[in-house]
Amino acid sequence: MTARPRAFVVVTGSELVRGDRTDLNGPFLARQALELGLEPARVSVVGDSPEELEAALLEGLQADLCVVSGGLGPTHDDRTVELLARAAGVALRVDPELEEEIGGISRGFAERMRRPYADFQPGVTKQATLPEGAMSLGLAGTAPGFVLATARGAAVVLPGPPAELRRLWPRALETEAVQRVLERARPPEVRVLRLYGVSESAVARALADAGGDGDGVEATICARDFEIHVDLLIDQGGQARTRADELEAALAEWLAPYLFARDEQPVEELVLEACRSRGWTLATAESSTGGMVAARLTSVPGSSESFVGGVVAYSNELKERQLGVPAKLLAEHGAVSAEVAAAMARGARSRLGADVAVSVTGIAGPGGGTPRKPVGLVYLHAETPEAGRARDFSIPGDRDTVRRRATVMALHLLRDVLTQSRHEDA
Amino acid sequence: MTARPRAFVVVTGSELVRGDRTDLNGPFLARQALELGLEPARVSVVGDSPEELEAALLEGLQADLCVVSGGLGPTHDDRTVELLARAAGVALRVDPELEEEIGGISRGFAERMRRPYADFQPGVTKQATLPEGAMSLGLAGTAPGFVLATARGAAVVLPGPPAELRRLWPRALETEAVQRVLERARPPEVRVLRLYGVSESAVARALADAGGDGDGVEATICARDFEIHVDLLIDQGGQARTRADELEAALAEWLAPYLFARDEQPVEELVLEACRSRGWTLATAESSTGGMVAARLTSVPGSSESFVGGVVAYSNELKERQLGVPAKLLAEHGAVSAEVAAAMARGARSRLGADVAVSVTGIAGPGGGTPRKPVGLVYLHAETPEAGRARDFSIPGDRDTVRRRATVMALHLLRDVLTQSRHEDA
Repeated sequence: MTARPRAFVVVTGSELVRGDRTDLNGPFLARQALELGLEPARVSVVGDSPEELEAALLEGLQADLCVVSGGLGPTHDDRTVELLARAAGVALRVDPELEEEIGGISRGFAERMRRPYADFQPGVTKQATLPEGAMSLGLAGTAPGFVLATARGAAVVLPGPPAELRRLWPRALETEAVQRVLERARPPEVRVLRLYGVSESAVARALADAGGDGDGVEATICARDFEIHVDLLIDQGGQARTRADELEAALAEWLAPYLFARDEQPVEELVLEACRSRGWTLATAESSTGGMVAARLTSVPGSSESFVGGVVAYSNELKERQLGVPAKLLAEHGAVSAEVAAAMARGARSRLGADVAVSVTGIAGPGGGTPRKPVGLVYLHAETPEAGRARDFSIPGDRDTVRRRATVMALHLLRDVLTQSRHEDA
Repeated sequence: MTARPRAFVVVTGSELVRGDRTDLNGPFLARQALELGLEPARVSVVGDSPEELEAALLEGLQADLCVVSGGLGPTHDDRTVELLARAAGVALRVDPELEEEIGGISRGFAERMRRPYADFQPGVTKQATLPEGAMSLGLAGTAPGFVLATARGAAVVLPGPPAELRRLWPRALETEAVQRVLERARPPEVRVLRLYGVSESAVARALADAGGDGDGVEATICARDFEIHVDLLIDQGGQARTRADELEAALAEWLAPYLFARDEQPVEELVLEACRSRGWTLATAESSTGGMVAARLTSVPGSSESFVGGVVAYSNELKERQLGVPAKLLAEHGAVSAEVAAAMARGARSRLGADVAVSVTGIAGPGGGTPRKPVGLVYLHAETPEAGRARDFSIPGDRDTVRRRATVMALHLLRDVLTQSRHEDA
């Protein structure tokens, strides 16, 4: 796999190299490179110091594909174009068409801001300046993206705001310079197995027992959002595919109780689809997760088709009042108990008029723990017209981890009870 | 400011350079370097290809402080120690004490897994191997962190899992090698002004009108979570501080209506503190944000002191049933209206028995918009025993952006009505 063309990403922005903001462009571009059949070699994040940026660009230009994000704004701190041209050994020139286009946008902006256009003129000319021979990709915002053919392949330069970068990226792929690099690439077939309820090390062992990767198949095991993802990158050609089929079949068989998807569709979408296909409505009853389960479900467009709503019953009083949890149950078992979780789910079904409900009650910490009920103890319950299922877990973890884990478990519990209610509870 | 020692971060992990996971260590270490008075020069993310990692380490060792994260595991893919030693030109040696310590942990693990310890022995020896002259920082997990004195200063090597890295980092700062670098550093004083309800460009203009930065003061303007943060980094010495005082006073005066904090305390904490100080309880009534406001509030430890709970009323039926919104109001004005937002907040106060409530109703999209009520239109309402306040906004944006923006606005609306109810509504 070493003969794949190398891709090198340079991300510039002083707020990124200072840790004020998390870079989203590097991971996006690296993943794109991988799926296009390139080898993502490095993502370098640099500030606006000219020396550091030039050094990173010089290195980037050694790769077959160098993708640069940011530093295209109108001010003197935005030096990507100038430094890239210098690193590539070409001159700069103003693109008259681009200047007119950016000028038009800036005139409108100046009017709205009631400032003279002359204030913007130097910035417009700067933003319309490209390295000699560069191919403009057009504008996103007022910053143009462009592609420059290099000695090794191509450099793609894109604006820093992630939405703008993603808009121009497909255009970059269509340029002749990038196409020449992609001709040498070998896009792998990508398969994914998604597992829940099993540890990363158990999956690693199953993979090793199945003969491991190799023979044109590269397997990576990655924990993501409390799920385990096995990615198989499969080389073109018959032998690799045969090996991948064997490996996938072995993993699917051994890990069958945990395998729930072979694509990237989020679990909240699987839950909503399962509800829709049965014509069932859905509600939530949350204590320690404080609305996070409902927030995940409603992140899906069209979720209102099945999801009617939820109650965040943080106080015991609201558990009684809004969900009809008996005061006696709360007194006898405590708010964090399997009994109260079950009553919350039942209460959500009846009080909110939903067919399906899930509940979460737990101790997220850092306070509130006792020796019998420590921080990190969480009870969940899901109920449909046909089946009910309970879960609990106890992990030492910080408040955020306990809550996020409980949220994901609530969604998987719903998925499980909705799609596999014919099976016995594990 | 150019004479500050340079800090260079190398983050290794194939899942990071492929975009499977977002790197959290680079931003953390860069921010730490900045606050320690170093210049964060670059964050390089590389995979486990030996050539790429060695090249990144060679570069990193040119800096005064090189911090490396990841690649310390027990398998042959974990090459950080070997390659760092080679890049630094020193030999490797097994640390017997470390070997015993890691061995003890691995023995326990082997027993729990019911596997022979012999399977783990090579990994233990590998993890106990350090570059000659390195200073161990002890373990986090089974991976040891260490510090190596270099020609230019120091290299700090830490395990990849963020929690482990953050646990060992303070120990690295205490080592002699790192202390020698820090002696040459000039930690700036850091001040922050946090603003809400004003655009980044208006703040940039106010900064320019106030004379801009310089004279030992570096100002950065950064949009974060729909707030605007102005960071002032102030050099040691009297003149810079005087200039910072002037700049801060001018900005605070001109931007007074938007300035709400001078520290990093999250807005949800400010809301809960304001409730607690008045002895008021708090509830939420959410439609389009689907629980996100409640989730933010309950992310704060101890939030149950003031926050009693909330209703996610996604369907109109639940708006009536759980919040007592009159059917007539819904029919006349529609669920997305100022009238329904006000009724939801009132209903949350009475039905949930809370003193203070906030409501959100809007069209998050992508479906559901009309010419009169487009996607991105959101109404909010906050009410206390003393005052009520309404807000609305309309932005073209994707579902996630509309929801996150509405969530932040709900929290700021609460903060505003709780802390400034003596002022007129803006």
